Amino acid sequence: MKKVYLVGAGPGDPELITLKGSDLIRKADIIICDGLVSEELLMHARNASELIYVGKIPKGSWREMPSSSRKRTGKHAFTQEEINKILVEKAREGKIVVRLKGGDPFVFGRGGEEIRELKKHGIAFEVVPGVTSAIAAPALANIPVTDRMYASSFTVATGQEDPTKIEQKLDYGSLKADTIVILMGVGNLKKIAAQMLKTRSRNTPVAIIEEGATKRQRVVVGTLGNILKKAEKEKVKPPAVIVVGDVVKLREEFGS
Amino acid sequence: MKKVYLVGAGPGDPELITLKGSDLIRKADIIICDGLVSEELLMHARNASELIYVGKIPKGSWREMPSSSRKRTGKHAFTQEEINKILVEKAREGKIVVRLKGGDPFVFGRGGEEIRELKKHGIAFEVVPGVTSAIAAPALANIPVTDRMYASSFTVATGQEDPTKIEQKLDYGSLKADTIVILMGVGNLKKIAAQMLKTRSRNTPVAIIEEGATKRQRVVVGTLGNILKKAEKEKVKPPAVIVVGDVVKLREEFGS
Repeated sequence: MKKVYLVGAGPGDPELITLKGSDLIRKADIIICDGLVSEELLMHARNASELIYVGKIPKGSWREMPSSSRKRTGKHAFTQEEINKILVEKAREGKIVVRLKGGDPFVFGRGGEEIRELKKHGIAFEVVPGVTSAIAAPALANIPVTDRMYASSFTVATGQEDPTKIEQKLDYGSLKADTIVILMGVGNLKKIAAQMLKTRSRNTPVAIIEEGATKRQRVVVGTLGNILKKAEKEKVKPPAVIVVGDVVKLREEFGS
Repeated sequence: MKKVYLVGAGPGDPELITLKGSDLIRKADIIICDGLVSEELLMHARNASELIYVGKIPKGSWREMPSSSRKRTGKHAFTQEEINKILVEKAREGKIVVRLKGGDPFVFGRGGEEIRELKKHGIAFEVVPGVTSAIAAPALANIPVTDRMYASSFTVATGQEDPTKIEQKLDYGSLKADTIVILMGVGNLKKIAAQMLKTRSRNTPVAIIEEGATKRQRVVVGTLGNILKKAEKEKVKPPAVIVVGDVVKLREEFGS
């Protein structure tokens, strides 16, 4: 039995995958990937006999791919249970399985759930970290998450908390670091801003980076007081990263 | 005039640099690098006529390097002012300058200070994000910073706050996310643990990962109540990453 590699694909730009991740894509027999993974990365999948999409299919991806004899499956978003089952099945066939995830496998990537399932079936696994969009999307929009003058800590939180989670619900107002980064939070922006306004000034700078680390990157800058209105006006859509804190001011200083 | 690239070298394992970062090392005329950067990465510096070490020199690095005709300078830790001066000088010579930093340039990498200086002199720059050790060192020790059951947020803080920073001092007890990751905190562990004990139970799990993402990785696991004693007994040394929170429990579950 071979191994299952949980590989971080990076934040969007295909040049921001790691050497190790890229090498594993070349070697993989089977690649099981999320919707957020760039199609350009999959071009390097030389050995893979099968690409399985388990997330939402990115727009136009079937058209953009060169015609290929390899099997491409997956037309809907799979449940975590279905994904776990595929991982176990393919590993048992003796295949080199790469589970390719947007960003980093352990930053809201549900990597832990897949590992639990693999362990249960005695299947070896290896985690290959990736560049997370929580840090890279702001960076490429000229917003450093830490800065000597403005931020000696940053918090990354999910904007879409799992409703079945056993712990108490996340209160965005209670997060206390100098910089707050929220992933997958656009659909929940109204609640996030309202909670943060309970502990922060209306003038606290906020940026929303849509499709960060891609050529389609778009940045909307405002404050906790007006960001909801601005996001609605600009029709901001997922995937997007929200950054809250004084570091947002640096975007203007660093921009050209 | 060419560009200065601020490149994240990743967390230690030379395979965890990005494709873009690796490519820039190959193309660079001058590489200005920190002590935490792996010597193996610098082997790929084909065009570089000069490697300038501006951080603490890693043990044995001069011996391990193949003999080379290229200029290698820098035997002490440079001040930030000296580094800024070198960046400007070399860029003005029309060189492709790569400023190579351990981890990610914007995670306590002082990238912002270098950018301010470059902007002041009208020099173009580009940031190339890297895999941060804040996430990767725990991951490679089987500790995910987020997990569906245990953590829907994580905070990354520096353990060595800049004494000249204008903001109020960091209080480690006030950090509120489910997982807390502290970089460069080993020398400050006594204060960090004492402050965290004011808001957390003595039984809160803690792990210290020494030389994470390298073959020399060593992990010391304990609780907020006993970690100081354990770290002293095991003689834990920098560089190390401290992780606090229930996710540390997963190390045992995921380990083999």
